[in-house]
Amino acid sequence: MASVERQIIRICKAAREASRYLALADTEKKNDALEGMARALIKRVDYILDANAKDARNARAAGLPSAMIDRLLLNVKRIRSMADSISEIARLGDPVGEVLEFKKAPSGILIGKMRVPIGVILVIYESRPNVTSDCAALCLKSGNSVILRGGSEALNSNTAIYKTLKAALRGFPEGIINLITRPGRGIVRTLLRQSGYIDLVMPRGGESLISDVTRFSRIPVIKHYKGVCHTYVDKSCDLAMARRICMNAKVQRPAVCNAMETLLVHKDIADIFLPMIAKNLKSSGVEIRGCDRTRKILRDEDIRPAKEDDWYAEYLDLILSVKVVDGLDAAIAHITKYGSSHSDSIVTDDHSQALKFLKRIDSACVYVNASTRFTDGKEFGKGAEIGISTDKIHARGPMALEELTSYKYIIFGKGQIRG
Amino acid sequence: MASVERQIIRICKAAREASRYLALADTEKKNDALEGMARALIKRVDYILDANAKDARNARAAGLPSAMIDRLLLNVKRIRSMADSISEIARLGDPVGEVLEFKKAPSGILIGKMRVPIGVILVIYESRPNVTSDCAALCLKSGNSVILRGGSEALNSNTAIYKTLKAALRGFPEGIINLITRPGRGIVRTLLRQSGYIDLVMPRGGESLISDVTRFSRIPVIKHYKGVCHTYVDKSCDLAMARRICMNAKVQRPAVCNAMETLLVHKDIADIFLPMIAKNLKSSGVEIRGCDRTRKILRDEDIRPAKEDDWYAEYLDLILSVKVVDGLDAAIAHITKYGSSHSDSIVTDDHSQALKFLKRIDSACVYVNASTRFTDGKEFGKGAEIGISTDKIHARGPMALEELTSYKYIIFGKGQIRG
Repeated sequence: MASVERQIIRICKAAREASRYLALADTEKKNDALEGMARALIKRVDYILDANAKDARNARAAGLPSAMIDRLLLNVKRIRSMADSISEIARLGDPVGEVLEFKKAPSGILIGKMRVPIGVILVIYESRPNVTSDCAALCLKSGNSVILRGGSEALNSNTAIYKTLKAALRGFPEGIINLITRPGRGIVRTLLRQSGYIDLVMPRGGESLISDVTRFSRIPVIKHYKGVCHTYVDKSCDLAMARRICMNAKVQRPAVCNAMETLLVHKDIADIFLPMIAKNLKSSGVEIRGCDRTRKILRDEDIRPAKEDDWYAEYLDLILSVKVVDGLDAAIAHITKYGSSHSDSIVTDDHSQALKFLKRIDSACVYVNASTRFTDGKEFGKGAEIGISTDKIHARGPMALEELTSYKYIIFGKGQIRG
Repeated sequence: MASVERQIIRICKAAREASRYLALADTEKKNDALEGMARALIKRVDYILDANAKDARNARAAGLPSAMIDRLLLNVKRIRSMADSISEIARLGDPVGEVLEFKKAPSGILIGKMRVPIGVILVIYESRPNVTSDCAALCLKSGNSVILRGGSEALNSNTAIYKTLKAALRGFPEGIINLITRPGRGIVRTLLRQSGYIDLVMPRGGESLISDVTRFSRIPVIKHYKGVCHTYVDKSCDLAMARRICMNAKVQRPAVCNAMETLLVHKDIADIFLPMIAKNLKSSGVEIRGCDRTRKILRDEDIRPAKEDDWYAEYLDLILSVKVVDGLDAAIAHITKYGSSHSDSIVTDDHSQALKFLKRIDSACVYVNASTRFTDGKEFGKGAEIGISTDKIHARGPMALEELTSYKYIIFGKGQIRG
C-alpha cells in the first residue's frame, strides 16, 4: 500500500474512532465546544483574513472566474456570520437520541425510532471557506465526525479556519474534524474507496467534480448539484410583487445555486411585465437571453436569442434566460425538462394555479410568491447547511442537523417470539 | 448502442413516464388496483405453483443449497400470504402528499415538508418469489414505478407472478411494473448506468451481488445486506424467557437474515444456561460451534471450536456460534466488531443494562427481551417490506411505504425577498 493511502486510512480510522465517542457525547459538552469554536473564529479574524488574502491573490493571478472569486472572499462580516452560525447551531436542539415515534406492533412488542448520528461524513467542496466551519459545527452537534476536502483555491483559508476550530476542541478525540490538504484527484479517489470507515460523501461543486465522485465512490453519495432555478410569473398576479421577487432571485447574489437562471412569463401579461422587468434587469447589469416572443416584445437589439443550451444553463452570473409561455402547463413542462430539481417559484394570485404548481413541480423547494433565494439552511431555521441536496434519497434541499442523522429501531418486548 | 441497451433504456423510459403518472394518482385508484392484484394472485394460484415447481426442479437438479431452495419454494399458504400482504398494503394510509411539518421561518415564509414518491426503483434480488409481489405492491402504493430483476433460479415463478399482477393493472401505464428476465450480469450493469431514469437501487442478496452493485452503480444504492444477528443473555434474566427467545431466533426459520447466528452468554450464568439451551438446540438439529469456555462447560465432543471466521458468519442454517463473555461491555465489543448492524437482542431484567445495550449497539434494530426474528416489514406493521436496509442513509431496517418516499419543501410567501 502506498504511504499516501496508509496516511488516508490512518485519518479515516481516527475519524471512525472519534465518531463512536461523539455518538455518546453529552449535548452540553458539544454545545460548549461549539461556543468555543465560535469565539475562536472571532479572536483569530486577522489570521484568517491574511490566509484568505493569499488565496484571493492566487485566484486573481490564476484568472479564476469572478463568480468563483466572489464565493472565495472573506471579510470581517462574513467571518462574524460564520461564528454566528456556529452559535446558532449550539442553541438549536440536539437531534441525537430523540425518539421520533413509539408504537405497539400486533405481537405486542413496542417499536420506537431513535435518531442516531450517521458516523463519518466526507465533504468535498469548492471555493467557499465558510463551508469548512459550517460543516465542522453541524457534524459535531449531530454527533458525526467529518473529513473535509476543500478546493485548492481556498487551501490557505480552509487551513486557517480548520486550525482555529481544532485548537478550540481540546478534550475531544483527535479525529473529530479532519482536513485533507494534499493536492490531487488521486487523494479523493482513495478517500472514496474507504467504505469501511466513511458512511456518507457530500460533494458540493461543479459538474465534473460531482460526476467523478459518483463514478468512483463505494460510499453512499448525496449530491449538492447545480441549481437551474425558475420563476414563473402567472397571468393573475401582483406585478410589483413579481418584479420584486424576480429581481431578488436574480441579482441579490447571482453566483449562488439558489439564484434564478430562467424567467418564465405567461403570454397574457408578457406585454406589460417584460418591458417593466427588462428595465430593472438592465440597470442592474443583467444580460437577457430571450425566446422569440420575448425578443419581439422587447424589441431590443441587445437581447440575444436564447439557444437550447441556455435553458439548461446555470449561469451563476448576471445573465438570465427569459421565455414567454402559454400558461402553467407549459411552464411546468419547461421546468420538468430543463430544471435541476433545486428551487422553483410561481408568482400568482390564483389559488388553484398555486396548488397545481406545488403538486406538479418535482423540486427540492417549490415556492409560491417568494424568492428562490430562501433555499438556505439559515433561512430555513437550521442554523447553516452542510449542503443542498438535489438528490431524492435521504434528504432534499438544505441539509443540516436532522438530515445528518439516521435512526435505529429500539424494540421492547416481554419475551415475545415470532409465531 | 447495442440493441440490448436500447431495450433496457426503452423500459427505463417507460418506467419514468409511469412514475410521473403514479406520483399524481388518487389513493382510491391505487387501492383498487392493489385489491385487483391480490385477487389475481389467488385466482391464478395453480399457474404460479406450476411455474414454481419448474424452478424447484431446476434448483434441485443444479444442486442449490437447501437454504436457497427453502426461500424459493411456494405453496398455497405462501401465495395466500402474498395476496394478504397486498391487501394489507391497500388498507394502509397513503404516504404521498402527507405534510410532515409546517413552520414559519424568521423571514415570515411558511415552510412545509410534503412526502413525495422517489420515482423509479430498481430491485435486484435472489430466490424468494414473494419479493416480486411485495415490491410491486409497495411501489405502486407509494407512487413509484419499479423495475424488478429477480434471480435466474426463480425465473419461472417471478414471471408467472409478474404476468398475474400486470394483467390486473389495466388502465395504468405500461411502465408501472417491469420485470427484466434476460440473463447475465451485463444486463444489471447496463441498468446500473441509467441514473437519468432510475432513482434508487435496492440489491437484496449475497456478498458478491451487493459488492458488484455498489461498485458499478451510478445510482444511489441502499443495501439489503447480511444479518449476523446476536442474542446476548445477561446474568440477571429470566432463563426460561432467554431459552424461548434464543430457540425462536435460531430455529423458527434459520434461512433468513433476522435469524440469530451468534449467542453471547454472561459468564455468571453460563454454567446453568448453556447446558439447558444446548439440549434444546441439539434436539432441533442445531450444530454448535463454541468458544473455549463454552466447550469446557458443555464437555461435548460434538461441539467444534468456533474459529475467527465463525464470528463473522451468516450461516443461514442450523448452525450457531456460542461465546461466553465477561459481561455487557464484552458483548457490545463483540457485536460492534463482528456484527452486521442488522438486529441484535439482549435478554435481561436489569434496566440499566438494557438501556446501555440500546444506546451502544449501533444496529438497525436493537431489541430488549424479544426475538430478532421480528425484524420484518409485516411484523413492524408495514404490510410487507421492499428490503431490510443495513445502510445508514435514507432508511434503516425494514423498508416499506414511508421509506419509499422522499419529500419536497413547499413554501408559501407573500412576496418575501431575501435581504
